[in-house]
Parts: sequence; C-alpha cells; structure tokens
Amino acid sequence: MARWKRSSDGLPRRAFLKQGVALLGAGGLGAASVAGAEAAGPPDSPPWMKSPGAGMSEYGSPAKHEAHVKRTAIASRPGTTGSGASRTPLEALDGMITPSGLHFERHHSGVPDIDPSQHCLLIHGMVRRPLLFTVEALMRYPRVSRIHFLECAGNSGVMYNPSPPNLTAGQTHGLVSCSEWTGVPLRLLLEEADADPNAPWILAEGADAAAMSRSVPMAKAMDDALLALFQNGERLRPENGYPVRLFLPGYEGNMNVKWLRRIKVSSTPTMTKDETSRYTDLQGDGKALMFTYPMEVKSLITRPSPGIGLSGPGLYEISGIAWSGNGSIARVEVSTDGGKTWGAAARATPVLPRAITLFRMPWKWDGRPTVLKSRATDDTGAVQQERDRFIAEHGANAIFHYNAIHAWAVQANGEVKHVYA
Amino acid sequence: MARWKRSSDGLPRRAFLKQGVALLGAGGLGAASVAGAEAAGPPDSPPWMKSPGAGMSEYGSPAKHEAHVKRTAIASRPGTTGSGASRTPLEALDGMITPSGLHFERHHSGVPDIDPSQHCLLIHGMVRRPLLFTVEALMRYPRVSRIHFLECAGNSGVMYNPSPPNLTAGQTHGLVSCSEWTGVPLRLLLEEADADPNAPWILAEGADAAAMSRSVPMAKAMDDALLALFQNGERLRPENGYPVRLFLPGYEGNMNVKWLRRIKVSSTPTMTKDETSRYTDLQGDGKALMFTYPMEVKSLITRPSPGIGLSGPGLYEISGIAWSGNGSIARVEVSTDGGKTWGAAARATPVLPRAITLFRMPWKWDGRPTVLKSRATDDTGAVQQERDRFIAEHGANAIFHYNAIHAWAVQANGEVKHVYA
Repeated sequence: MARWKRSSDGLPRRAFLKQGVALLGAGGLGAASVAGAEAAGPPDSPPWMKSPGAGMSEYGSPAKHEAHVKRTAIASRPGTTGSGASRTPLEALDGMITPSGLHFERHHSGVPDIDPSQHCLLIHGMVRRPLLFTVEALMRYPRVSRIHFLECAGNSGVMYNPSPPNLTAGQTHGLVSCSEWTGVPLRLLLEEADADPNAPWILAEGADAAAMSRSVPMAKAMDDALLALFQNGERLRPENGYPVRLFLPGYEGNMNVKWLRRIKVSSTPTMTKDETSRYTDLQGDGKALMFTYPMEVKSLITRPSPGIGLSGPGLYEISGIAWSGNGSIARVEVSTDGGKTWGAAARATPVLPRAITLFRMPWKWDGRPTVLKSRATDDTGAVQQERDRFIAEHGANAIFHYNAIHAWAVQANGEVKHVYA
Repeated sequence: MARWKRSSDGLPRRAFLKQGVALLGAGGLGAASVAGAEAAGPPDSPPWMKSPGAGMSEYGSPAKHEAHVKRTAIASRPGTTGSGASRTPLEALDGMITPSGLHFERHHSGVPDIDPSQHCLLIHGMVRRPLLFTVEALMRYPRVSRIHFLECAGNSGVMYNPSPPNLTAGQTHGLVSCSEWTGVPLRLLLEEADADPNAPWILAEGADAAAMSRSVPMAKAMDDALLALFQNGERLRPENGYPVRLFLPGYEGNMNVKWLRRIKVSSTPTMTKDETSRYTDLQGDGKALMFTYPMEVKSLITRPSPGIGLSGPGLYEISGIAWSGNGSIARVEVSTDGGKTWGAAARATPVLPRAITLFRMPWKWDGRPTVLKSRATDDTGAVQQERDRFIAEHGANAIFHYNAIHAWAVQANGEVKHVYA
C-alpha cells in the first residue's frame, strides 16, 4: 500500500450526483465518501494473494468478519428457552430477501425436533373425505413459489411505550422478514378432501408442545394459502416450521402455523387459546379487536439508523423497507425535516404484493440535527399515520399491529437515535 | 397413530386435476399420492409435542434430516484443494432463489481469507482521477438490488462427452445458482473517476492467489454492472467474493470477478491468462471463440430427475428451471414423448431478466418408458437446440457454453436416467 495515498476529501461529486438523481429519483442528493489515489500501476499484493486460499465446502457460512450480524433481542419467557422471539438485524441487511439463518423467530414452546418420516398432516372436520398426508405424499403435489414477507403481530410492540426505546432498527422492528416460499396450494388438498363449500372456517394446529392453533377463514384457505415446504429454495428451516408450515400471505405471523399437523374444517372459529387469551388487540376504549388478520402498511428507514450513523456533513443514501399485508407498496415518501416536507423515494423492482419493497433516496446532510421519517402507502390507498394520531386512535394498551410512522433523530455528531416526533 | 388408517389408493383426483390444469396450464395432468383416513378427532400427539422444543438461535441452520442436501461433485485440480468447483444440488431445491450456503463455487486458487478493513478497490488506467476505495467507503454509496442467476461458463461441460453421464441434475448442471445481489452500480465509480469515454474496455482483477482477471467491455460496465456487497440480503459469503465482487448480469461466471481489488480502464482487452489459456470456446472446426460473454438460453427438468423417480403410473408435476443471459424467459415447452410433441409449461412469476424462471407442468404417466425434455425460448427469440444439432454446430471439443436440450429417460420401474435422445 506504500505507493498509495488515500484522502478523505475531494469527492468528485458531479457524476455521482447526476447518477444519484437519475437512479434514485428526485427529492434529494446521494452521498458517499471515497479515498483518492494517484498512481498508474497496480497496488501491492495483500497477504491473502500470496498463497492458495481455502477449499470448497458442502454448505457455506457467512464470513467470520460478519459474525456480529445475528438475530438479536433474543428473549424467552422466564423459566423457558423457547417461548419467545429473536429478531432480524434489519440494519445490517440490504435486499428484499432475508437469509433464512436470520429470519425472525417466534415460538410458543420452542422448536420441535420433528422426524419428517413420522410427521403427518390430517385434514378432517366438515369434509366428505378425511385425508392423512405423509410429508412424502405432500412432496409430490404441484407447487407454487411466491416471495412474501412474514411479520409477527407483535412486531414493533415496544412502540406503544410512552418513551421511545433506545434500540436498533432490528431490535425494534425485526419481527419481519421476507422469503421465497414454495409449497402446495392448500386449496388443492381441501378440494381433494371434498370440504363442505358452506363451511366458512378452518382450524390449523401445529405439532409443537404448545399445539399452536388458529382459526383461518375458508376464503383465505381457498385463495392464496400455501402448505410451505421450501424457504429460499431449500427445505424449511426447523425454526420456520420444518417439515411443513401453513403460509397465509400478508396475515399476522402466528396464523402461519408452523410444524402443521392438522386442519379441521368447521362452521365457526374454534376460539383457541391463541386467539382469545392472545392475539387480540386491546384498544384505547377497553374493547379488543379479534381476528385482525392482515398486517397493515408499514415502512422503516434502516440506513441511517442507530449504529449506522453519519460521518459528517455530505451526501448519503437513505434506504429502507416497506411492506403491506393488504397488497403492494404504491408509494414511499421520505422526510428529512421531521415531517414538514416529503419527497418520493425510489422503489426497487420488482414491487411484489405482500413482499418487502426496498426504497432508496439520496440526501445531502448539512450537518444540522434533524429528524428522518418514511411513510408508505399501499395499493388499497392505506397510508401510515403519525404516531400521535395512531396512539390516539388505538390507545397504548395494545402490543400488536403497530404500524405508525417511525422517526429517527440525526444528531449534530452524526449519531442516530429514536425519537417520538 | 393407532386410530388412523392410511392407504395409498383411492386418490380423489377430480379436484386436483381441475386445479392442476387451472394452475399449471394445459398440456398434461398433475399428480401425487395421498394416504386416506377415516376419523373425526385429532390424531395422537407425536413425541415432539410432549415437551418444550429447542430455544432460539443467533444464526439458523438447515434441519438435520436435510444434511444430505449439500453442494455436490466437489472437485479440485490434483494437488490443490481450492482450484475447482462445487455444484448446487438443483434436484433437491425448489425456488427461484438458491440459498447462499448452496450457491455453486468455482475458484482458481481457493477462497482468500480477506480482512475487509484492509481490502481496497483501485480504479485506475485511462481515468482522470484514479481512486482507491475502502470497503467502508463503498458501503456508503447508493445501491441497487437485483435477482440474477450466475452460471459458470463450464456448466454442463460433461455434456460434450460422447456418452451421457450417469449423474444427477445438480452434478451435471449445478454450476448455476440464482441470488438477489445488492451493490453499487459500477457506473457511479467510473464516472467519479472520470473514466475516458473513449476507452472501450476495463480489466477486473480479484484478490485471490490466482489474481483472476478478465477484460470487460466498458458498455457493460456502464450499463448494469454492480459492485456486489450483499447476496440474498446479507453480506457476500467468502466463497462468493467477500467483501466485494463484480457482478455482470447474464455474463459467464468467471467474469464476475470475486474479491475485486482492481479495475483498470483500457483501450484494448488485456488478454489475461484467464481469457487466452482458458475461457475460450474451441469449436468443431478447430477455431476458438473468445469473449463469449452472455450465457445462452437454457432449461432443465429437476423433478423428476435421477434420484427423484416416479413411484408408479399416475399423476405427477414436472418442474424445473430456465434462464438466459440475454434476457427473460419467454416460453418453456415440455415434451413427455421424447420431443415428438411439446406442451407449454407454466412460468412462475415474477419472470425477471437474467434470473432463474421456474416452470411447472402436470403430467399423467401411463407407466411406459418415455423421455422427458424441456425447451426454453428467451425474449430475443433464441431457443435451445437438440443436442445432436448443437454438437454438429459447435463440435465436441469445447467445455464451455453448453446449452442444448436435456433429456431424461423415464424407465418402466419409474427410475430416471440421463440419455442422449
């Protein structure tokens, strides 16, 4: 490296800005810091070029230098190890797809160790022909593949707190992930079982020790529900329901019953413990909402965010993720002045329904403290509200279905922290 | 399970077939085997429901029962461990995305152990302003995310052999994978370096011990070339170029230089060892083609395939993957009679340019031996040829850029093997 002079100044910003604006749409200016160099020949060889590297492997792992990128805020109920959640480190990732190893977890009694050769799925209840499926049998059915987010109903629940949590983006909002799910349309099996066309409900039950169970409208089961067998190309991970899970695009996470063992067709909802004692949404007026299925439109700036601050005035890219359980993301707006003015962020393509949509916007920071916000609108016209209005409507008793606008304060020193603003 | 009677007969195929045709398009009939059951209550609880399961983890792994799903046909040059390839087990996967742990590998001198805090990327040559980038600096640039396949030029090279290899789909064709790649448009940095607009070439050099180097047309560099930093949402894996690789959508794998350390803008191709002694395509007439960049349109049936046979006459889904380095997959046709007749397979959406497109078609097997083929057409109109015609045109001396129609023989016992037909 001796021949190479680095500098942190002198950004030739012209081309970058032109590109930034062209690539990223109007509304601000992009940014980065580069080190200049003056030379003609190649730089010295680093030590890792001086001897052969490692060999091939049967199944790869992340770089050791990225070992800090891991699921975070892992917490279980007292006295248990598997009744809790772990979160996706959203601020360390970039992409529509969440790597399966970092997909969030939410278990009600841990991850069962299921032998797929012994696992069965029963379809019974209001059907003419009860059916029992081995995994081997399921594996022979026609499949479809879809990219969809999955979000725990309780994601961002800490945002109901009276003061803003001092947490990273992932610790706060990391109960959302996005994968390609491949499996058998549930409709195929319900038709094969000759389910009563007048039965409006099904019950789905998992093979964990909690027998996690939820009632699902038959209309959803016959629409886009999947019996997911593959996640991001390979068979489901144990913590995501191996060997088979229910997948209900857009619906709150717990309804996507993992380790699925039973579907019962019924005339009423079953009113399971998981939909009476839990997964109801207590409102400000003391009433509780039940059966609130789709996760509402939501967005989050992941860069900058706590731990990923700014290193001085200059050009930056603001980027983040948006999603809606009710459809596609039609628009994401970003404010760099605390919500007084908004500019359109660019959405990455493809924009898929009920999937994470990336958004990006260039920004020139003048070095003064300010507040960054993002606001998503889905193709039903639903738009995120400011937090104070959201709390006024929903109250602060709830823990589920929080989807208000999120605010990050950029401080004069470039650090980013959470504020209610 | 005592109360449950399973049977392997009595498939109520009506609903399934109707669905199959609706879902998968005309051209055949779908298939699967299910076990029937007669009962009203839930089945007995399996042992893994009787005590709490495992806790959360910081980074997940595949199910232990899937340990056989691994990169395959790992081979290195004699006396080396890292100069060779490992292949994606295509037949065990289903989805557009390849999990990063199973992405194929092709290294010329192993996987270097790079400290990202010491790694630099130099842009020099015919530029007004040579630039040296730390990884930290690169990480601050605007990014784009794209789902693209990557295919080694030598994928399917064994197909030039005079007799059909007795190998699985992945062992034969598994030097192709598909990921979401996120990174910085190379154009941004070339513009920032004030690259000479009349310089038609760049050289890209890797920081491995082979200093793997290829010449790339400036037109591609200024079009859709990326400096990829993320793969499937997380930072690149070491075997895929951590901390930064060049990504050239659609171009043969080796040009997507891993561990990228240098880009030199030049007036001519550099004629590196990697593009003169290797990665040229010897034709039947003894001439060799150089600089054959995009990987041609191609497809492969992965189910059924060797090791994933048929368990008797009945209904099945034929499925597989198609891709083209020149654009999007416009059509995939499947023949179940050795190429005499062809039917349209359904393409999974989204159909993305230079990405894997899944195809699926239902089929009713009558139990007689036959030959299955798939044939893809891309949106430039290019279509796969039968093997005999491909070999007649290209000769059998080559090892690169094989893209003829692939044939699987289904035998009377349901086993599947490779044939030239």
